[in-house]
Amino acid sequence: MERILISETPKFIGQKVKICGWVDTVRSHGKIVFFDLRDRSGIAQLVFVPGKDQDINDLAKKINSEWVVEVEGQVNQRPAKMINEKLATGQVELLVENLKVLAESEPLPFDIKDLNASLPTILDYRPLTLRNEKIKAIFKIEEEVISSFRKILSEMDVTEFQSPSIIPLASEGGSEVFHIDYFDYDAYLAQSPQLYKQIMVGVFERVFTVSQVYRSEPSITTRHICEFTGLDAEMGFIKSWEEIMDTVEIVTKGIFSDLQKNRAKEIELLEAKLPNPNVSFPKIKMREAQKIILERTGKDNTSEPDLGPEDEKEICKYAKEKFDSDFIFITHYPVKKRPFYTLADPNDPEYTLSFDLLYNGLELISGGQRINDYKNLIANIEKWGNKIENFDFYLQAFKYGMPPEGGFGFGAERMVKQFLGLANVREATIFPRDMERIDQRLSLLQSDKKKDKKEI
Amino acid sequence: MERILISETPKFIGQKVKICGWVDTVRSHGKIVFFDLRDRSGIAQLVFVPGKDQDINDLAKKINSEWVVEVEGQVNQRPAKMINEKLATGQVELLVENLKVLAESEPLPFDIKDLNASLPTILDYRPLTLRNEKIKAIFKIEEEVISSFRKILSEMDVTEFQSPSIIPLASEGGSEVFHIDYFDYDAYLAQSPQLYKQIMVGVFERVFTVSQVYRSEPSITTRHICEFTGLDAEMGFIKSWEEIMDTVEIVTKGIFSDLQKNRAKEIELLEAKLPNPNVSFPKIKMREAQKIILERTGKDNTSEPDLGPEDEKEICKYAKEKFDSDFIFITHYPVKKRPFYTLADPNDPEYTLSFDLLYNGLELISGGQRINDYKNLIANIEKWGNKIENFDFYLQAFKYGMPPEGGFGFGAERMVKQFLGLANVREATIFPRDMERIDQRLSLLQSDKKKDKKEI
Repeated sequence: MERILISETPKFIGQKVKICGWVDTVRSHGKIVFFDLRDRSGIAQLVFVPGKDQDINDLAKKINSEWVVEVEGQVNQRPAKMINEKLATGQVELLVENLKVLAESEPLPFDIKDLNASLPTILDYRPLTLRNEKIKAIFKIEEEVISSFRKILSEMDVTEFQSPSIIPLASEGGSEVFHIDYFDYDAYLAQSPQLYKQIMVGVFERVFTVSQVYRSEPSITTRHICEFTGLDAEMGFIKSWEEIMDTVEIVTKGIFSDLQKNRAKEIELLEAKLPNPNVSFPKIKMREAQKIILERTGKDNTSEPDLGPEDEKEICKYAKEKFDSDFIFITHYPVKKRPFYTLADPNDPEYTLSFDLLYNGLELISGGQRINDYKNLIANIEKWGNKIENFDFYLQAFKYGMPPEGGFGFGAERMVKQFLGLANVREATIFPRDMERIDQRLSLLQSDKKKDKKEI
Repeated sequence: MERILISETPKFIGQKVKICGWVDTVRSHGKIVFFDLRDRSGIAQLVFVPGKDQDINDLAKKINSEWVVEVEGQVNQRPAKMINEKLATGQVELLVENLKVLAESEPLPFDIKDLNASLPTILDYRPLTLRNEKIKAIFKIEEEVISSFRKILSEMDVTEFQSPSIIPLASEGGSEVFHIDYFDYDAYLAQSPQLYKQIMVGVFERVFTVSQVYRSEPSITTRHICEFTGLDAEMGFIKSWEEIMDTVEIVTKGIFSDLQKNRAKEIELLEAKLPNPNVSFPKIKMREAQKIILERTGKDNTSEPDLGPEDEKEICKYAKEKFDSDFIFITHYPVKKRPFYTLADPNDPEYTLSFDLLYNGLELISGGQRINDYKNLIANIEKWGNKIENFDFYLQAFKYGMPPEGGFGFGAERMVKQFLGLANVREATIFPRDMERIDQRLSLLQSDKKKDKKEI
């Protein structure tokens, strides 16, 4: 008999079927045992009534949560009072006739269905806790965010390319970069695909890339991790830098529209609230934002070169109150706070043609127009204290003709965190890496090594 | 005026349009200058006849290859004898009325249109040489291979996840792993997403991932690079290991079918030959393959534990001659030649339920059924000389119930290399990394550092 999916069982009332999955829960009612069985499509109720076959009777008694089983039996309509409206298969149950164990499970360390463990424990047991329905739903949302990003840009005639992770120098500056022993040489992990996506504008005009990016974050915060999935786009022949913001708005709204269409079940389960698709994202200059924050809070940060986390929260509150928008573009960051490749505003050269898109209180997307003129770019690299020869490869793209261009990038995990209102970005990261953890806690895993080091 | 794409120009005969792009070539015929202009959609012929505006006349004289320009003018039907059948826009030309330089280019180091530089030179100038039409076409093919892989598996209800690159130990064994300085600890770059995709089978049953994978290859060959794009899938509840091979065949044929549909232009340009879609991939055991090779060549490798590169070529010749197949599955590799998680054949425990798919003389895809039983897996980890505690995290997936499962993986670059008949996998890698190169040649870039090291 061919296996069917659990979601298909309501179509087979009165018929024999085979289903497979993990035992979600077991409830004994005297001799009769009820199992909930879980596969990728849903959950089914199995009813086991002991019969003549003593082997199967014994097996049914042994089976517990997370055992993997194959079951044959008849799909029956449930008695009216047993119907479970909340479950897609809640009007049927399967009367077990044959039962085969595909894999046993050891007793669980805690209940993964009704999970109330702390985040560190949830992460210590990630391979197990990922099986929780709500945690699973987070990563179905993330899958959709990424595939929707790709779909929307592909439809805009943007070419996808694979950006390398091993890079010869710390391209974006800053100390937050991981060093790799690369044969006899030094190499680093990419902090972003920035330089490569710019090079690729010279080839395909418009490109995007989905790549793992790395930040050696020396502190633990709820919004930073050491490895995340960067969604990056870059486009040439732009008429103005505002075209980049328009694209960001189209892409962001498109992602939420796809989530609504393709992940309604997960959105309902996680009680997430979709942003209003009819509101245009407001845009204000950073200096104006600081003035608004001063007016609203009395705190004067108007001479700061950037918005702090509290400022970001406050200006998002303002955007929500004034425009009913979960998003707000903050534009014109000071030249000093942006990387060397950012284009200065010709009308106000202390500030850049750059923006951040804030979402529900947190910076989500960064972008802007870049310097496409070869000589200006060289001058800026030197001004930022870098050696030209370290950028020879990248600079070829500009030496041989680069159109006006710009782009944007963001982390998939952070978008999911903000959408679902998760307290910590680690909850939106399948296997989060930070200074204390790569899968397991490093202090446990490499305790020998640390001891060795201390002894030296 | 809004910019139109060059491919749209034939629809605008007799009308004024604006187009943008890179100057591909310049040909002066007395006073009249012909430019070929290139954008992402194609190439257009521009005709410039000097007029009253001396500034534009001077500009037109200065412009050379790779300058980026914006042009306004009238689209005209070409005279009959000037029609170029080979060009999509070959029946029209644009009479230039207005000309604006968006970016200049320095003189090119060599002709990138008619490229006959050596591969090292092509890679030294990658940002420039990627603009060559044939090289560009390679990466449009690669884009399609990857997006087709995703599309086919998504349609099979397989969930995509993002596999991490930073790992706590060298999971697959072997010395070919890059070390990262990870705060106070050791970490490594993933050699494959193997352990993570297996964990994810416990969550979503069927998963795939597109991830950068890393091999610290200590020698230079035409088929190895240090960072490549791994296309990996893993599926639970398989009825037999042959289901994995069936999936490999469906995915492989699906990719070529999508290439034919969506990349016909590039396939024609690169003169690539699509495999015959109607031939089933033949399957033979490794020991049988060795016997066939002995019969065909007289060379006796029948006691070798693996096929060498020459063996792979010979058995592919055989598959082509006997089955008209560009592909052949080699199955049942010896237990010793496969990683610890590979399932042994219950009928012949010296051999595994594993396979390689060879394509045109080279190993392309590896896969097989895995050990899903927790106790067997632990026993094998120890047998392979590894410490159980190093695999605690991974082992959770099996401790708490893992169905029978298997999967496969391959490098996108290698598939493109074999399809296009390229001599070196670097040609199919946008920014290849090897022991001598990360973008630039390391000996040039880091010569100071190497000297320092020697002095120590």
